[in-house]
Amino acid sequence: MTNTIEITKAQTSKIHDVDFENLSFGKVFTDHMFVCDFKNGEWQQPEITPYAPITLDPSARVFHYGQAVFEGMKAFKDDENKVWLFRPEDNLLRINKSAERLAIPAFPQDVFMEGLKALVQLDEAWVKQGLGNSLYIRPFVIATEPAIAASPAVEYKFLIICSPAQSYYSGDVRVLIAEEFSRSANGGVGYAKAAGNYAAQFYPTNLANKEGFQQIIWTDADTHQYLEEAGTMNVFFRINDTLITAPTSERILDGITRKSILKIAEDSGISVEVRPVKVSELIEASKDGSLKEIFGSGTAAIVSPISAFSYKGEVFEIPHQEERFSAIFKEKLLNIQYNKSEDPYGWRVSI
Amino acid sequence: MTNTIEITKAQTSKIHDVDFENLSFGKVFTDHMFVCDFKNGEWQQPEITPYAPITLDPSARVFHYGQAVFEGMKAFKDDENKVWLFRPEDNLLRINKSAERLAIPAFPQDVFMEGLKALVQLDEAWVKQGLGNSLYIRPFVIATEPAIAASPAVEYKFLIICSPAQSYYSGDVRVLIAEEFSRSANGGVGYAKAAGNYAAQFYPTNLANKEGFQQIIWTDADTHQYLEEAGTMNVFFRINDTLITAPTSERILDGITRKSILKIAEDSGISVEVRPVKVSELIEASKDGSLKEIFGSGTAAIVSPISAFSYKGEVFEIPHQEERFSAIFKEKLLNIQYNKSEDPYGWRVSI
Ligand SMILES: Cc1ncc(COP(=O)(O)O)c(C=O)c1O
Ligand SMILES: Cc1ncc(COP(=O)(O)O)c(C=O)c1O
Repeated sequence: MTNTIEITKAQTSKIHDVDFENLSFGKVFTDHMFVCDFKNGEWQQPEITPYAPITLDPSARVFHYGQAVFEGMKAFKDDENKVWLFRPEDNLLRINKSAERLAIPAFPQDVFMEGLKALVQLDEAWVKQGLGNSLYIRPFVIATEPAIAASPAVEYKFLIICSPAQSYYSGDVRVLIAEEFSRSANGGVGYAKAAGNYAAQFYPTNLANKEGFQQIIWTDADTHQYLEEAGTMNVFFRINDTLITAPTSERILDGITRKSILKIAEDSGISVEVRPVKVSELIEASKDGSLKEIFGSGTAAIVSPISAFSYKGEVFEIPHQEERFSAIFKEKLLNIQYNKSEDPYGWRVSI
Repeated sequence: MTNTIEITKAQTSKIHDVDFENLSFGKVFTDHMFVCDFKNGEWQQPEITPYAPITLDPSARVFHYGQAVFEGMKAFKDDENKVWLFRPEDNLLRINKSAERLAIPAFPQDVFMEGLKALVQLDEAWVKQGLGNSLYIRPFVIATEPAIAASPAVEYKFLIICSPAQSYYSGDVRVLIAEEFSRSANGGVGYAKAAGNYAAQFYPTNLANKEGFQQIIWTDADTHQYLEEAGTMNVFFRINDTLITAPTSERILDGITRKSILKIAEDSGISVEVRPVKVSELIEASKDGSLKEIFGSGTAAIVSPISAFSYKGEVFEIPHQEERFSAIFKEKLLNIQYNKSEDPYGWRVSI
């Protein structure tokens, strides 16, 4: 395959129809998309084209067997109108790790980075200045081969689409701790951003929503005693002044925000423990007042404070802290992402 | 919604291009398909149209979150050219059970049955006479709403496509018993025909293929001590003259072939045990010679004899039986399906 991306520009831009003050997440897309097909055993000519519907045979395996993986990342605009990505190589590495588990061919690193940068450059006007504004970027791969045998496809489509975003969650989040439903198992695909992992959470999350909880914190499928992660966020606990989070595993997504927070926490002299966390420990800490914070971390919400959790019908409110760890991490992350501070880690990548 | 299906016939048939003697499973489709969209909170006008590609926004949720369920069923042609379905209401009930778990709206029973029959009637010429020949029918639902928020879609497409089939597996199957990978967990979606369940099996199955095993028999994700089911088949064991199979659960698909076999076995005076089966029991029975048969059951293969299993690197061959249960069940099932015998159960449904 050639690495030179073929670019076809949109004739007109849709940008003037968009109300950037009132975006709902993931509904508006920019003028272009990146597309690359896999067939005859290799990735074909990468292209940037006008954002447009795709046409597939009804027998395309993605419709039947969920052979699909995705990523989520963001671009940020600084005060000088320069656009930055945040740790994009990690998203590439992770989509390929997910792809391997789903028997999807890996996508070449150089084409990914080149395509990503060219696409964001082309749609730069869609990245708005101002903290909280960003361009949400969604790389994904789908099995397109028209054949319904239950085996890996030999044809795929890799795409990158972009959606301008404000913040994902508004306000504090109330969560339910899973007692019965589960998200993943040992030996399964929980660590991958496999499409099917997400739809599987919709029904239990609907039930939680009805009880007034926006998210579920998943527990291990065996015993439901250990806290794992939320639907699209890793989860942190602050007990007294120690920051605690579960280790990643084959059941838990290795979140890029999570590992960035761990790094920042260590470098800020905050005591950090990466270890299994029991539900019972959380409840005790809540009862004796040592539980100071719970928050989720993820690309979409960055840091999302959790104000209450429910377990076996009992609701535990988390008293508001004056000095929240979550606020510190959010600020430090945003400062790096928006080029407002030094970036000692080399996480910021110019497009 | 109106129940009257709008039918647009294909102008020409593709049937003359098809080599019915050399079909590979699920690659050739008939002239028509059934389509019904869900929007504004309800299923819209059902249609039968020429089989054709479908066009979706790249942000359609099925591509990102695997919000999709499917069914597999067959039509058979008897010696008088009459076409029969096998327990079709069970497929409808099951797709709606799967749909509920995936937060997809249920599809109305009458429209399903009417659409299915009308479609198979229209493409009747594609159902060939002769044992082993059949029309494989694939109803499925996909989330089409163009929005990448990780929550249930508000728009869906229900389709039925049909593919002429010979037999799915050729010859006896050698299987690997899962020791590390897993297919489903308690509280998960294993009992549903959720798209994502299938892609998740591709990678471990590829590994098994490389070692010379066509299929995996999954075990419980916790302990890997209990035998559950294969990728697209339930599994039966014959120890001496007792037929044993695991009970269905939230981890195991409630197979229609499985329950048909259980019924036939009971009525044939075969001793049947529906109970958890340990891997260790299987190994002991293999060693002491009491393990007479293992076979899989499913719509695609109907009954598929298993000639060997591997566990922790050791391969256990199953000596060929003169009088196989699997052959008895297959014959009785085929006779009912192809209208060669009485159907005391009312399983056969004329189109
Ligand atoms: C299951 C799951 N956990 C955690 C995360 C957070 O990961 P990241 O910080 O890389 O966005 C995500 C979202 O990307 C996710 O889907
Ligand atoms: C996971 C799984 N188990 C078992 C079966 C067999 O079910 P049935 O006999 O209804 O085809 C299937 C296929 O349909 C399946 O997908």
